[in-house]
Amino acid sequence: MADVPSFKDIEAAHLRINRYIHKTPVLTSNSINKMVNAYVFFKCENFQKAGAFKYRGATNAVLSLSKDKAKKGVATHSSGNHAAALALAAKMRNIKCHIVMPENAITVKIDAVRSYGAEITFCKPTLISREQTLKKLINKNGAVYIPSYNCFDVICGQGTAVKELIEEVTGLQYILIPVGGGGIISGSAIAAKAINPSIKIIGVEPANADDAYRSFKSGRLVPSVNPKTIADGLLTSLGDLTFEIIRKKVNDIITVTEESIIYAMKIIWERMKIIIEPSAAVTLAAILENRNIFKDKKTGVVLTGGNVDLANLPFTLLSSHR
Amino acid sequence: MADVPSFKDIEAAHLRINRYIHKTPVLTSNSINKMVNAYVFFKCENFQKAGAFKYRGATNAVLSLSKDKAKKGVATHSSGNHAAALALAAKMRNIKCHIVMPENAITVKIDAVRSYGAEITFCKPTLISREQTLKKLINKNGAVYIPSYNCFDVICGQGTAVKELIEEVTGLQYILIPVGGGGIISGSAIAAKAINPSIKIIGVEPANADDAYRSFKSGRLVPSVNPKTIADGLLTSLGDLTFEIIRKKVNDIITVTEESIIYAMKIIWERMKIIIEPSAAVTLAAILENRNIFKDKKTGVVLTGGNVDLANLPFTLLSSHR
Repeated sequence: MADVPSFKDIEAAHLRINRYIHKTPVLTSNSINKMVNAYVFFKCENFQKAGAFKYRGATNAVLSLSKDKAKKGVATHSSGNHAAALALAAKMRNIKCHIVMPENAITVKIDAVRSYGAEITFCKPTLISREQTLKKLINKNGAVYIPSYNCFDVICGQGTAVKELIEEVTGLQYILIPVGGGGIISGSAIAAKAINPSIKIIGVEPANADDAYRSFKSGRLVPSVNPKTIADGLLTSLGDLTFEIIRKKVNDIITVTEESIIYAMKIIWERMKIIIEPSAAVTLAAILENRNIFKDKKTGVVLTGGNVDLANLPFTLLSSHR
Repeated sequence: MADVPSFKDIEAAHLRINRYIHKTPVLTSNSINKMVNAYVFFKCENFQKAGAFKYRGATNAVLSLSKDKAKKGVATHSSGNHAAALALAAKMRNIKCHIVMPENAITVKIDAVRSYGAEITFCKPTLISREQTLKKLINKNGAVYIPSYNCFDVICGQGTAVKELIEEVTGLQYILIPVGGGGIISGSAIAAKAINPSIKIIGVEPANADDAYRSFKSGRLVPSVNPKTIADGLLTSLGDLTFEIIRKKVNDIITVTEESIIYAMKIIWERMKIIIEPSAAVTLAAILENRNIFKDKKTGVVLTGGNVDLANLPFTLLSSHR
């Protein structure tokens, strides 16, 4: 297992990536505050470059490469936001980027990766096929593999979003973070606990993809088996490094229903007039499902991304009383 | 016809409403700038209270009432954003608000008006029925009629958005404004020409609801007959007061196709991750349809509102090559 990053590493990452990333705004909504009886501060990584927090980690990883290593380019397998983020980060450093994507990845995401100039290799939509295809590719071209979450440099980059949030909003009592592979919650927990150990860090997962919840509660790393959720960014399972950090630094993990996720997404679209993807809606869903916990609390949430397929939105799935 | 407002009147309105409205942000998008080869500054009135610029005019009208007049409450007929804006402005001053709405108004808008505490009277969906129902209501309860655009105080309030835009962004060469009844373009033109007469003010209309275009070109007020457009906020025809101001102060009026409107709306949702309604998309549609005019130009546009029915979005109507 790789080293666990310290807050110093996240501070160094922040200095490294600062002039390449957007310092995203923190928004509030009176009507949502009234609705949940709390004070919610939304860190809007949906406005980050490439539309998601992933650009922070990818940029830190790309900028951390030595000149010699960078020459060979970078590579990863991903069907989603990490692919686009790495492609854009590589373009920014003017190095090659190779992305292995499952052949069933959605057109919008393929187009984004392509528009940033990365080379795409398609493979079967299984983890084994993705890993094997990537391995072959790297053996051939010598590119550096940048994993999407279980990676020191990536975790350090992701931690900078919550660092900015805490620097901007004083007195936060809770911070809620979506959990997929655990990259952003790991970086966030390290940053938050270093700045103010009393802030409670809560991970949120779809009940339909609850490997982190089960791993956290049992103390043993349990991967997801065929998870199915509208929150397509949260299908991945924890890695050994992110699990280690979560066990030590995270206060709790909460799961939410699919219905709550879609409803929370709708609330944010309607009230805040901003576009977030389903994976980013799990945090407000957790507040809506646990009003007693967050009542009157100053609560930060990271809106992790805003990449959705506008031709295929989930709102008609909501039950009619909403 | 009522008096034509001066810039002094708009400045007074701004002082009057300043602490009740949001000073909305001005956003830019590198990818949209690259796409159209221009520098576009988006004044985000979709983030205004009640989701549209209409709150500025309604608030100015409500705050301009004497205590005696205010006691009787305010009233209007509207199926859309003016209804919600007036309801919220009345609530803010703690006076009664009566809204006449056509019985086919969409649920989302009815719910918004109701949630702000206004009393709704439904009528047949014709202008005559709306006007007659309102007249009867006012005869009974003595409320003050606040028209949605052809009104001195409303125009003064609407002009404050572009005043803020010009104060924040120096050197604008063009400002594009959607035209429905002409309230916001009238206020905007008065403000812009007073601050910097060289700024060109361009109105934009759907080709399918082009009464302002035809009136402007012919010099005679020509109302729309049964206009049909996805831009539901731009169905109304100019009034005598707004036409008078537009004739004197506006440089040109451009029309755009339905396809362009939906495409521009999609571009803004996808690239900027913000929600705007179709009526607000006509300005980017005009830039997309007239790239030669705006090439390399510093161009302001007002994103007039963000109230959409999420269960009924138009993106699947786009032709497949987009």
